[in-house]
Formats: sequence, structure tokens, C-alpha cells
Amino acid sequence: MNVPAFSDLNPPTRILLGPGPGMTHPRVVRVLTAPTLGHLDPELLKIYSEEQELLRYVFQTKNEWTFALSGTGTSGMESALTNLIEPGDLVLACVHGYFGARLAEIAERLGATVDRIEKPLGQIFSVDEIEAALKKKKYKLMTIVHAETSTGAEQLHIKEIAAAAHKNGVLIVLDTVTSLGGIPVKIDEWDIDMAYSASQKNLGAPSGLAPITVGPRAREIIEKRAKPVSSFYLDLKQYANYWGGAHGYHHTASASLHFGLREGLRVIAEEGLDHTFARLRSNAEMLWNGLEDMDIPPFIPMEYRLPPLTTAKVPAGCDPHEVRARLLDEYNIEIAAGFGALKDQVWRIGLMGYSSRKENITLFLAALKELLK
Amino acid sequence: MNVPAFSDLNPPTRILLGPGPGMTHPRVVRVLTAPTLGHLDPELLKIYSEEQELLRYVFQTKNEWTFALSGTGTSGMESALTNLIEPGDLVLACVHGYFGARLAEIAERLGATVDRIEKPLGQIFSVDEIEAALKKKKYKLMTIVHAETSTGAEQLHIKEIAAAAHKNGVLIVLDTVTSLGGIPVKIDEWDIDMAYSASQKNLGAPSGLAPITVGPRAREIIEKRAKPVSSFYLDLKQYANYWGGAHGYHHTASASLHFGLREGLRVIAEEGLDHTFARLRSNAEMLWNGLEDMDIPPFIPMEYRLPPLTTAKVPAGCDPHEVRARLLDEYNIEIAAGFGALKDQVWRIGLMGYSSRKENITLFLAALKELLK
Repeated sequence: MNVPAFSDLNPPTRILLGPGPGMTHPRVVRVLTAPTLGHLDPELLKIYSEEQELLRYVFQTKNEWTFALSGTGTSGMESALTNLIEPGDLVLACVHGYFGARLAEIAERLGATVDRIEKPLGQIFSVDEIEAALKKKKYKLMTIVHAETSTGAEQLHIKEIAAAAHKNGVLIVLDTVTSLGGIPVKIDEWDIDMAYSASQKNLGAPSGLAPITVGPRAREIIEKRAKPVSSFYLDLKQYANYWGGAHGYHHTASASLHFGLREGLRVIAEEGLDHTFARLRSNAEMLWNGLEDMDIPPFIPMEYRLPPLTTAKVPAGCDPHEVRARLLDEYNIEIAAGFGALKDQVWRIGLMGYSSRKENITLFLAALKELLK
Repeated sequence: MNVPAFSDLNPPTRILLGPGPGMTHPRVVRVLTAPTLGHLDPELLKIYSEEQELLRYVFQTKNEWTFALSGTGTSGMESALTNLIEPGDLVLACVHGYFGARLAEIAERLGATVDRIEKPLGQIFSVDEIEAALKKKKYKLMTIVHAETSTGAEQLHIKEIAAAAHKNGVLIVLDTVTSLGGIPVKIDEWDIDMAYSASQKNLGAPSGLAPITVGPRAREIIEKRAKPVSSFYLDLKQYANYWGGAHGYHHTASASLHFGLREGLRVIAEEGLDHTFARLRSNAEMLWNGLEDMDIPPFIPMEYRLPPLTTAKVPAGCDPHEVRARLLDEYNIEIAAGFGALKDQVWRIGLMGYSSRKENITLFLAALKELLK
């Protein structure tokens, strides 16, 4: 067998303005090089406890079961569902984009009977629409995406939607992958039963960890399950026993990734959530104004437009994919195509975490202007 | 809500001589700081293709479906099983330690009917024992651990065991978490249907990625499944479509971790597998001789003793946990306790990847000698 020989790793320095990952914060990059620790080292357990407190701060929750899972945001999504769902359960999936549909698909794979209500891409649900659907059957849980990365729409009224769910005896699972650390997420005030996110968007860390938080109703269901969760890897009872309690072995978590996430969260805590959100919004407005000036209007109405992810309408006669390729090749700027039916109609431009800086926006707008000349 | 404030991250510099993680290779540490890439960046796809070629080299296979999953070794274990098992399938689990038992548990969680055959901790199976068990029922697959991290025993005769499995129409899933890159693993020569490992043991990278390789029989079963795999996150068809084919989006893989794993694999390829194995074995012999000299004999007979993980009998009258704690506190050396019934009887001393260096062994033996005075 041939021995493969490859050159040194020298990836280009990208300016990541896509739907995630955002750029790794330089403070996070530095801690990645700290000497690694064993997964049961008392010093790592201390770091977990600090990381938990920081996660509770960004989630705005007191939930004891608040961890970072050893996987990407999709592992958080799957863990939320696999811990709550048993085969035959009824699930209401509110779908206003690709990630809402992914939640429905995962619930079905787990043996749930899933009813979908759907909005066209770029729209969001009213509380009434969800309330009406909740009344139709005796659902165990409902799923909804707070910030749809596929469209750039923020689902508003989450507090009212959660109240409607609970009035009907239904749990609410909230996807906060693109919202956490980017716009306000208030788990306790909104009374959310389960929410998960990802380390590589607004939290400034590399991908590979999925923050998750479990409210009291969801925790009780998990603790009282008769049948074990079908996934051992994503079993939240095992996580609770590893991060807390007896600190029993479950899997070999990546100390290096936890170093990074703790640092990314610390950057946010030092600036403060409110200041962070205000800065990210002001940067997004700069992008939106610049796009409007070039007759490339954002696709989502201002009322529920997401600062961390903007969809912008491709001008007539322009090949959106060629522009994307040239931004990457000539300027090292990554943006993304639209999703699904929006593939040729919009670009997706992310301003997530450390990617959201004025210099990146100015460069992006100037580069786009040159390419569209 | 209080804003948590924590100090800069300054973990101690541990010498990791436990059951994994091994120490991160300094070349790997350096590439972790390379600017990160989006999960669909053409430059990352090139890196995947090189990483695949390197993984095929350490697995000694031509299997096209050879990837690194976005999770720890346990995610590899779970992926191997969830992609092959459908509820009601018959599984034969050969258990000669904790990880063999974990395979059985995961198979049961997935709805398989699992028969276990067991060996006392520290022993391995003969081919005859497995062959006799294989004949009892019409099993779909059998599971076995190549290098039991809980005991330090190498299961020999894997090629003959695989042949026995195939003679009976049974697939073989092999756990190579502690063997890959540490002792010879020959997927194609042994005709293994599915094997998985972990990035943080002999491959010198941080935890967080699970190399996996899928042979033709297993791949055919997966491609022909009527029902989708219950786990979307660990669905190997989705991985095949992300790493190859259309490079379709599946999840946001961690470019930083892939940079690290590629570099760890490159270190091995540059030294060559045979030289790597010979060096690791010679280092382990140095440890074994040193332990024998101190009347702390290894627990596993030489015939199937694992260089990457040694279990050593705790001397009479010695508190093994106090010694471990003092090694960590006073010398920054991590070793582990025994597993399960062996908890108070043995220490587990790992010499994995970059941890396996003469200077570490000399220091460990000298420190242990001081503590046992």
C-alpha cells in the first residue's frame, strides 16, 4: 500500500460571512493551543463548571442541566428530540425553513408521528396559527426554529408560542443555533423546555460543541423514561452524570474545544449580552444600508430580519454562484447561496460573532460593488 | 442575572499517561491555530480527500467510505451500529471488557436482540469460542473490541474470527479505538466489515473526531436499507454524500479538528506504520521492564499485552487512588484506575501516540518509585 505524502497545511485566510462557521475569535484561537487535559481531570471539571455558568448566562437560564454536547449543532437538535421522543409520540413541527424541516425529519426517524405546519420561505408564524394547530391533537411536543439560517427570518413571539404550547400540555423545543449570542434568547422568561445551539456561530469558537439546556418539564420526562434513550451518545442523563453528580465516564470530551468555547463565552460575558446584541445589530444595519444603496435589498422585512444572517436579493441578470465563487477566489470572502427554492434568488450573508466587524462589512460591500460593475 | 467573570485559561501541563486522550502532538497543536474554513469550502474538501487517503493508510484499506465523524470514539461506535441494525436484528456481542459491553448496550438501545458471550476481565476469546457462538443462531452481525482499553488486552486472531463470522453469514464490527495507529490494524486483509476509532489516542490529535471505515458488505446493507437510520447525525449515507459525491450539506464539521487529525495522521505516515509500531512497542517494553523491576507486574500476559495501554498490578498495602492523585498533583502525570472489578487492583498506564516517549516513561517510573518509598 502506498504511503500518502501531503504538504504542510496552509489553508487560505478566509473572511467567513456565510451561514456559519463564523470566524474564530483570536482569543479562542490562542486557548486552543493550551496543553490538553484528560476528560476526567479535576481541572477540566472546574472548566466545565465555569462553562456551564457562562452558558446559563447566554441562555438566560438557571437550568441545572445546561451542557455543551460533543458534536455539532445537529447533535444538539438530535439530542433534544431523542431524549424526549418515544416511538409513537405525536409531534407538531412548525416549519418555516430548512432547519424546521430537519427537526421534523429527525423526529420521524425516531418513530414519532409528525404533523407539519408550514410557512413559505421567508415568512414566520403568528401565535394564532400555532395555537390553532396545537389544539388539533394531543401533541407531546412542538418544535420551532428561533432564527432560520436558511432564510434569515427571526420567529417572533416565542414567549407567547411557548405559553400556547403549555396551555395545551405540549412541550416546546427551540432551535437557537443562529440566535444564541446573536440576538436575545431568554430561556427562563420564555419558559422554553429544551433549547440547543452550536459553538461556531455567534459564540466565536470552532464547530464541534452543541450547547443545550433542559427545563424542568423536559428534565422530568427524561428522568422518568421507562425505556432508555435510543442514542447512548446523546443521552442527557449520561451527560448530567458526567458534568455533575458522580462525574462518571461517558465519552472522551475534547478539552481543547471546551477551552475554546469557554473563552468565546467569556468574550461575550465581558462585553455583556446587551452591548453585544446592540453592536451586532448596528453592524447588520450597516450591511443592510449598504446593500439597499446597491439595489440589493434584504429579502426579509425589517420587523423580523436577523442581524446574524441576511438574505439579499440577487440583482436581475447576475449569476449569484459566479459572484460567490469570485468573492471566495479573489477576495477570500465566503458567503453562501440561498437554500432550496431560494437557491438562485438570494445570497446568504452572515455576520456572526467575530465575523461581525465593520472592516469586514466595508470590504464585502466594496468587493461586491467591484464584481457587479 | 449575574454576569459570570472568570480568569484567563491556564490549565496545568499534564503528562497524559492514561487511557486517552494521549498528548496532542506539537505539530497538531500548531495547525489548530490555522485560520478556519467553512464546512463546504473547496479548500476543506481537498483536506478531507487527503485525510481520507491518510485514514485508509492507517486502517490499511481501500474502502471508499472512510471518513472521520464529527464526534468522539463513542459516536463512531454508535454510528457503526445504528447504520447496520434495524429493530429485531440478532446481534452477537463478544465481551471481554467494558467497551465490549458498551457495544452490546448500544445495540440493545437500537432495538436489537443481543446475545453476549463473555470472558473474565483480562482474558481474550479463542476463535473456537466465537465460532461455536456464531453457529447457535442466525446473527446479523457480531461485535468485538480489538484493544480493550478497560483491561489492556489485545484480542488476537481477528482475521480468523472475521472468517468465521463470514462463513456463518454474519458481519463483523471491530472497535479499533485504542489499536488504530498503535498496533497493526489491517481492515482489508482481515476482511472487516466496519471499524471505527478515535482521534485522541494513537493519532496524536484532540478528541472530537471518530475515524470510521465501511467495507463492501456493510455498505451494501446500508445503501439498501428500507427504513432510514434512526440517527440523522450519524447517518453514513449522509456522510458519503458530504465527503464525496455532491458534497451536500449535512452538518457543520469542525475544520480546526480536521486540520489536527490530518496532521496527526501525516506524522504517522512520515514515520511509516511499521516504524511507528516498532517504536511504540519498544517504549512499552521499557515501561514493562521498569514495572517488573519494581515488582509491579503487568496484568496481561505478554502474548496479548497492548503497547498503548498497560494494566499493572497495584502492590499489596498500597492505596492505588492516593498514588494516582499524588502523581497528578505533584508530578502532573495522569494515569487511570482500573475499570469495574479491577478498580482497586490495577492501574491503567497509557503510552499512546505522542505520550509514548522515553522521557515520559523514565519520569513516570522514577515518580512512582518515589511515591512507593
